[in-house]
Amino acid sequence: MFVADLLLLLRYSVATTSRVHPVCVLYLNKSFLCTFFFTEKKKTELCQELSLQARDLRFQHSTSLTARNNCIIIRMETLKAIVTLNNLLVFDFRGMGLERWLVLELAPQLASQTYSLPFEFRALEAILQHRVNTLQTRLNEVEPVILDTLESLVDPKILSADRSKLHVLLQNSKSLSELETDIQVFKDSLLKILDEDEMIEELCLTKWTDPRVFEESSLGIDHAEEMELLLENYYMQAQELGNTARELKGLIDDSESVIFINLDSHRNVMMRLNLQLTMGTFSLSLFGLIGVAFGMNLESTFEEDPKVFWLVTGFMFLGSGLIWRRLLSFLGRHLEPTLVIHFIFHTLLFIFNCQIANVFFLVDTPSLEKKSERWNKMIILSV
Amino acid sequence: MFVADLLLLLRYSVATTSRVHPVCVLYLNKSFLCTFFFTEKKKTELCQELSLQARDLRFQHSTSLTARNNCIIIRMETLKAIVTLNNLLVFDFRGMGLERWLVLELAPQLASQTYSLPFEFRALEAILQHRVNTLQTRLNEVEPVILDTLESLVDPKILSADRSKLHVLLQNSKSLSELETDIQVFKDSLLKILDEDEMIEELCLTKWTDPRVFEESSLGIDHAEEMELLLENYYMQAQELGNTARELKGLIDDSESVIFINLDSHRNVMMRLNLQLTMGTFSLSLFGLIGVAFGMNLESTFEEDPKVFWLVTGFMFLGSGLIWRRLLSFLGRHLEPTLVIHFIFHTLLFIFNCQIANVFFLVDTPSLEKKSERWNKMIILSV
Amino acid sequence: MFVADLLLLLRYSVATTSRVHPVCVLYLNKSFLCTFFFTEKKKTELCQELSLQARDLRFQHSTSLTARNNCIIIRMETLKAIVTLNNLLVFDFRGMGLERWLVLELAPQLASQTYSLPFEFRALEAILQHRVNTLQTRLNEVEPVILDTLESLVDPKILSADRSKLHVLLQNSKSLSELETDIQVFKDSLLKILDEDEMIEELCLTKWTDPRVFEESSLGIDHAEEMELLLENYYMQAQELGNTARELKGLIDDSESVIFINLDSHRNVMMRLNLQLTMGTFSLSLFGLIGVAFGMNLESTFEEDPKVFWLVTGFMFLGSGLIWRRLLSFLGRHLEPTLVIHFIFHTLLFIFNCQIANVFFLVDTPSLEKKSERWNKMIILSV
Amino acid sequence: MFVADLLLLLRYSVATTSRVHPVCVLYLNKSFLCTFFFTEKKKTELCQELSLQARDLRFQHSTSLTARNNCIIIRMETLKAIVTLNNLLVFDFRGMGLERWLVLELAPQLASQTYSLPFEFRALEAILQHRVNTLQTRLNEVEPVILDTLESLVDPKILSADRSKLHVLLQNSKSLSELETDIQVFKDSLLKILDEDEMIEELCLTKWTDPRVFEESSLGIDHAEEMELLLENYYMQAQELGNTARELKGLIDDSESVIFINLDSHRNVMMRLNLQLTMGTFSLSLFGLIGVAFGMNLESTFEEDPKVFWLVTGFMFLGSGLIWRRLLSFLGRHLEPTLVIHFIFHTLLFIFNCQIANVFFLVDTPSLEKKSERWNKMIILSV
Amino acid sequence: MFVADLLLLLRYSVATTSRVHPVCVLYLNKSFLCTFFFTEKKKTELCQELSLQARDLRFQHSTSLTARNNCIIIRMETLKAIVTLNNLLVFDFRGMGLERWLVLELAPQLASQTYSLPFEFRALEAILQHRVNTLQTRLNEVEPVILDTLESLVDPKILSADRSKLHVLLQNSKSLSELETDIQVFKDSLLKILDEDEMIEELCLTKWTDPRVFEESSLGIDHAEEMELLLENYYMQAQELGNTARELKGLIDDSESVIFINLDSHRNVMMRLNLQLTMGTFSLSLFGLIGVAFGMNLESTFEEDPKVFWLVTGFMFLGSGLIWRRLLSFLGRHLEPTLVIHFIFHTLLFIFNCQIANVFFLVDTPSLEKKSERWNKMIILSV
Repeated sequence: MFVADLLLLLRYSVATTSRVHPVCVLYLNKSFLCTFFFTEKKKTELCQELSLQARDLRFQHSTSLTARNNCIIIRMETLKAIVTLNNLLVFDFRGMGLERWLVLELAPQLASQTYSLPFEFRALEAILQHRVNTLQTRLNEVEPVILDTLESLVDPKILSADRSKLHVLLQNSKSLSELETDIQVFKDSLLKILDEDEMIEELCLTKWTDPRVFEESSLGIDHAEEMELLLENYYMQAQELGNTARELKGLIDDSESVIFINLDSHRNVMMRLNLQLTMGTFSLSLFGLIGVAFGMNLESTFEEDPKVFWLVTGFMFLGSGLIWRRLLSFLGRHLEPTLVIHFIFHTLLFIFNCQIANVFFLVDTPSLEKKSERWNKMIILSV
Repeated sequence: MFVADLLLLLRYSVATTSRVHPVCVLYLNKSFLCTFFFTEKKKTELCQELSLQARDLRFQHSTSLTARNNCIIIRMETLKAIVTLNNLLVFDFRGMGLERWLVLELAPQLASQTYSLPFEFRALEAILQHRVNTLQTRLNEVEPVILDTLESLVDPKILSADRSKLHVLLQNSKSLSELETDIQVFKDSLLKILDEDEMIEELCLTKWTDPRVFEESSLGIDHAEEMELLLENYYMQAQELGNTARELKGLIDDSESVIFINLDSHRNVMMRLNLQLTMGTFSLSLFGLIGVAFGMNLESTFEEDPKVFWLVTGFMFLGSGLIWRRLLSFLGRHLEPTLVIHFIFHTLLFIFNCQIANVFFLVDTPSLEKKSERWNKMIILSV
Repeated sequence: MFVADLLLLLRYSVATTSRVHPVCVLYLNKSFLCTFFFTEKKKTELCQELSLQARDLRFQHSTSLTARNNCIIIRMETLKAIVTLNNLLVFDFRGMGLERWLVLELAPQLASQTYSLPFEFRALEAILQHRVNTLQTRLNEVEPVILDTLESLVDPKILSADRSKLHVLLQNSKSLSELETDIQVFKDSLLKILDEDEMIEELCLTKWTDPRVFEESSLGIDHAEEMELLLENYYMQAQELGNTARELKGLIDDSESVIFINLDSHRNVMMRLNLQLTMGTFSLSLFGLIGVAFGMNLESTFEEDPKVFWLVTGFMFLGSGLIWRRLLSFLGRHLEPTLVIHFIFHTLLFIFNCQIANVFFLVDTPSLEKKSERWNKMIILSV
Repeated sequence: MFVADLLLLLRYSVATTSRVHPVCVLYLNKSFLCTFFFTEKKKTELCQELSLQARDLRFQHSTSLTARNNCIIIRMETLKAIVTLNNLLVFDFRGMGLERWLVLELAPQLASQTYSLPFEFRALEAILQHRVNTLQTRLNEVEPVILDTLESLVDPKILSADRSKLHVLLQNSKSLSELETDIQVFKDSLLKILDEDEMIEELCLTKWTDPRVFEESSLGIDHAEEMELLLENYYMQAQELGNTARELKGLIDDSESVIFINLDSHRNVMMRLNLQLTMGTFSLSLFGLIGVAFGMNLESTFEEDPKVFWLVTGFMFLGSGLIWRRLLSFLGRHLEPTLVIHFIFHTLLFIFNCQIANVFFLVDTPSLEKKSERWNKMIILSV
Repeated sequence: MFVADLLLLLRYSVATTSRVHPVCVLYLNKSFLCTFFFTEKKKTELCQELSLQARDLRFQHSTSLTARNNCIIIRMETLKAIVTLNNLLVFDFRGMGLERWLVLELAPQLASQTYSLPFEFRALEAILQHRVNTLQTRLNEVEPVILDTLESLVDPKILSADRSKLHVLLQNSKSLSELETDIQVFKDSLLKILDEDEMIEELCLTKWTDPRVFEESSLGIDHAEEMELLLENYYMQAQELGNTARELKGLIDDSESVIFINLDSHRNVMMRLNLQLTMGTFSLSLFGLIGVAFGMNLESTFEEDPKVFWLVTGFMFLGSGLIWRRLLSFLGRHLEPTLVIHFIFHTLLFIFNCQIANVFFLVDTPSLEKKSERWNKMIILSV
């Protein structure tokens, strides 16, 4: 029988009537090979056969693991199974992506003879392993995406966070939270059993029918002890997954802080640059006013002197440059708020001095050479 | 008897005097149908009938579940009930929206014969189911609103958060907190019983009167064990609700971070654009100053040369453009704060060079062709 | 005896010497009325009378409840009391606002015969009730202030948070933290007793002297069981207070996030408006430069043509408007940082095109009609 | 013997060789006075004398309290001590600031006869008291500094946080964290003993040698019970310290939120003011363009009419004022982003209307009176 | 045999076939010296020799410590070891950096005769010590880097956070999280044993073969008690590491808040400075409009009066200065948003007053002296 045919059979052969559940029964035949067949049964039939209550077959909680009347009833999200002494029944397996696992992985795993453990141990181990693998797969899907997204978001060179990446991060962060909850629920369901010795013993189905199984083994280990080891093993695997998920959550938080500091830093740098340019514009406006004044259609008596044009033009450009340099050096030295006011009045004084100097110096043009020297000194002193 | 009439009867038939409590009594008649009648009783009468203390009928805590003197006293927020061996008494049910539930759901649920459990089990199950349903309903109301609001708030395209949606979010976040507390209180009240085997046994009223009920059942399950399963079932349902609520809280926190990063990113982008325009305005102001200078009513000796107009105008526009391009490329290359100062002095040097070039080049107009070539080279070099 | 007189008496009759403690003794007289008198005793006298150690009367911890040598020693913050079989002694009650409670509430409560509980039960209940009431009162004071302040702070219309309200919030948030601690300490002190059955039994003073008190009661309830119920009742009341306080804390945190998002949103909106105006100013500066150019005292050969004035003026206003509109539509369409650069060079190209068009079109005025058509097309195309 | 001499002796008399430990031995002499002498012993000698293992004298953990072979071995950070039945040995006390405490406080405390407790109780109490006092002192140092710093940082009037105060806050916040850890470690070490009755009994050294000590006391209290009370007392004192520290941490967090809201509010207010001034500058630029247009050296045909000067000047100032008022009222009414676009196109329309009105109205000056009326109406309508 | 040779031998002598594990066996020879040899064994051989199951040799979890069939199976991350009564087997030691430790530290430690503890105690102690040392080393690597980075990041003088340092911080913060998890896992694995007395006894291998070992010792200490002390010692060392790591995490969080406040403060100071300059630019634009008005080619009738030039120029500069001073003092006094509007209309009024004064005063030039006085008063009043 080919696997592909089997999978096809599995998918279509069983009619889906509402009250009838598709069941996959796996059992070990006499040559210790795992055989399986697909059937469909009514709930009531199953209850009678396994002498369980209808309630037990409802699998109410998303994750549960209980022993009831010599059966182990397991639900791990989509996987609903009942383990008896010799059979493993898997319910409602279709449309859940479980077919491949059932045929290709579960059957060989149950048949493997490496350690001669009773059937229910092997079935339980296969199912718990499948659950941990599922959780691990989900973590493996989420982890690299989050790490990549964070890597590109905390890149110090970027000015603004890429919004599509934020969306990806948010989606994966949500998946991570759900994964954390599922891991926690899985851990809790195992811990509940590990905390009560009675419940562990109930899970050892063989113990009540064939207590001498373990006596044959050389190591003299107990049924319950073996079961505890098995459950503890998967508990610790889940805990390792949980630790990784928690660290990832912490990394997201830390990275968000770094993104905020990055964005804030960028903003401060741009604001400083903006402030420096505003200082320049202010200086140009201040000295441009002189030009506007001379541009008025009013008589200023200097109209005819060709030297005055160059003097005023030079004063405008030079004055702007000097004021700007003072403003920049002020910004560079300290950004203390209390000092700003002092600076501004200091600067105002300097400006009015310059203007007065300008006016005086324009009034008597003959002594122009002398004045210009004095004026240069004045600028040097105040700068 | 029609349901509508019944509901009407339920609402108006019982006079509300202050000391008299409306009581709805539900019991199974001999044909195992659930019958109910409405009456009103004084507290003292009830105490005597049930041999309880007055204190027990005060239902002090919002959520409690205790066994007292062969009665189970339950309060689940608005629902106050006492379960005896054969009766279920519901108190103060009016105005709480409980009428419909009493008549349409509770009565059939008590009468259902699917599993032949004693009366108190069925009553307790009905009440706990009602409580979990109420909590589930509240979560179902809050969850989609929060998800929708967050969906629209983290939309990367929006510039500013919609304040009305923030209000909705805050309101629902508050409701979610209250729901979380209620779920926790419900879980705690169940856990308190689950942790003590004595209390579980006290809840099994039938055990003390008719201990053989369960012996008849085929499964040989114990009273206390059955009760533990029942309580545990609802405990786990509440835990699943709690997990969902906690995940939702986490999603709100994560989304808030994303909203902040979004708003900050938008701001940085706008600030960069603003800075680019400020650079443009600065460039125009700087070279506009030349125009202002030539606009002064002062003699510059170039007044009559028609070429000078085009040269100066060209220089103003071209100079502005070049300076702006330099500023933009500087911004694009690096935003390091230490480099800004270097850049500015570098630029200042360039500007003064240009101005000097301008002046020299205007002074001797004959050699205009040569100069313009040299000047072009100079610009190319400095850009 | 009038209450007012009594309160006066209470306040002034007892001289306050340092070593002498004012004590209020309450006891039930034979007609089951609560009588009380005020006295002052030395610590050593008290120790001998109650056969306690000096250490027991030091009331070291702010909240404690212990049984010692047939006395219950209670301290609840300001209230220090010792309950014996027949008496309730309250210490250092003056200046603590306890007088009114002692006379008006405690005495009647102790005398009430509703349930015939032993004296120590009633005394303990009165004191615990008083403690819970005090905590409830503090919560009731803090809660509405916080809710009101938050309500006005999260108002989406306000531009900046009212700083005086922030101060109020901070103060009440601090009070809330202290209240939470006090509730927790109260809960812990009750839980310590509830966790140990021995300690509960020690609190039942009557049990050791008159164990048959409860046998007389119809309900057959035990001393210790009754005490457990009593303590548990107040434990749960404290827990409800604690839950409310915790929810309030959560609400403050959530509201702070909303306030931040609100302020950030306002800032983004203002920044967008600012950017739009900066765009306008930039456009006006750019085309104003043309005006400045024609304002220069240089010969442009168009001086005499009256049409040129209207053409250039129109070009300036129309050009500014068009550029601004383009900038605004660019801002509206996308705020992507990478596109800004493309946009700016695109715009620069458009501007230079316009200027070239302008220049060419001014050079040959005869073909003005044709050119203006072509120019209009060019503008339409580039917009 | 003078205390000063003693302290001097204590500091210098004992030579510090590497292998030899300075030991201060305190014991009660027969007249029940606490005598002490200083000596130095080798570790091996000590081990033999006290019959302890070398490992026990290594005091590996910073906080530990264990009973070993009829000795209580205590380490509380710098204080290393061993309590035997009759002696208290303090090790390595020099350079730790312990000398003063040893001489002035510990000795009298051990000798005090107020309650006749065995020696080891008094020694243990003295050491635990010293530890709690040390923790209390550290909290007392940190608390007022933090409260003061926060008080000045949350001051709503300040524009920017004082950076030196932030540094102080950070330092003290770190100290507080370390203090919290130390309190927790102290609590844990006491709790470990309180949780196991055996360990408590081991601490009662007298019990094994002279079990009748307590029988003599009037109160009939047990050794172990007394020890439990003693440890519990210091546990609760530590818990109160821990609560205070935790509240302080919470206050720092709350205050930081308030500081952020304060800074954000200030920024929004400044941004609004900036926006209002940008609006003013924009209005002035817009109408200044008219002035620039008329300043061009181009023929506008109005040059000679003196009324036009006043009309245009008035229009410029009045128009700027009106536009600014409209912009301000727009800002005041609503800051909705969607409305900004509508507003801007509305305003643009208004401006173009005004300009057209301006142009038309300037063209035919005769009908000036009529036009001006119509124009006024238009302005009124559009405002 | 030289150590270097030995290390070389260790590295190359053992061929690495896939199924064969390199094993280092350490044992005490008869002269109580620790001898070791390197060998390679198949898993199945090992299982048979030690009578363990194959599963036990898979070392599935990263950190585990279990007793199985008179062997202690230990895995501490890279270190996989099995302790038997007389041997210590270390597996897969190559390429893990364990060689040096094996030869130089482990061997002498096992041989040391200071306290005559059984072999398994000494082996366990050596391995746990190695694990704690590894964790300590990792903390020592991370701690100074984090402290340095934070120190430079919270520096109040810096305007923007150094992005490369943020990256370093993020990397180390991640390492710290991983370290915290590892410490927690190590603590949990020890705690699991410490919580169950049975498991402690299982670890004492000698107890089952030679129970009289401890009876010989003078101190009469028990096997299990000794083992508990040993494990507890390393548990507490791990806890101290954990506390340090937790404090470091807290410090990072606190520092991030301080960095945010720092950046925000800087931004506010820059914004204030920007606002002050915007105020200046606004003032200059406002009064520059007068200059632009007079620059228009329109007849203002003042063209010929030389005094008017100086008056208007003075008015422009003086007016700008006064308005700016008013704006600055307004900013200094209060930043309340409601007052801004009042201020602006107040200022507008003042400006229009000035302009009206200006216009009136320019109209009749003869009474210029009088007007100027009145005008000065007006300015003084309004300022």
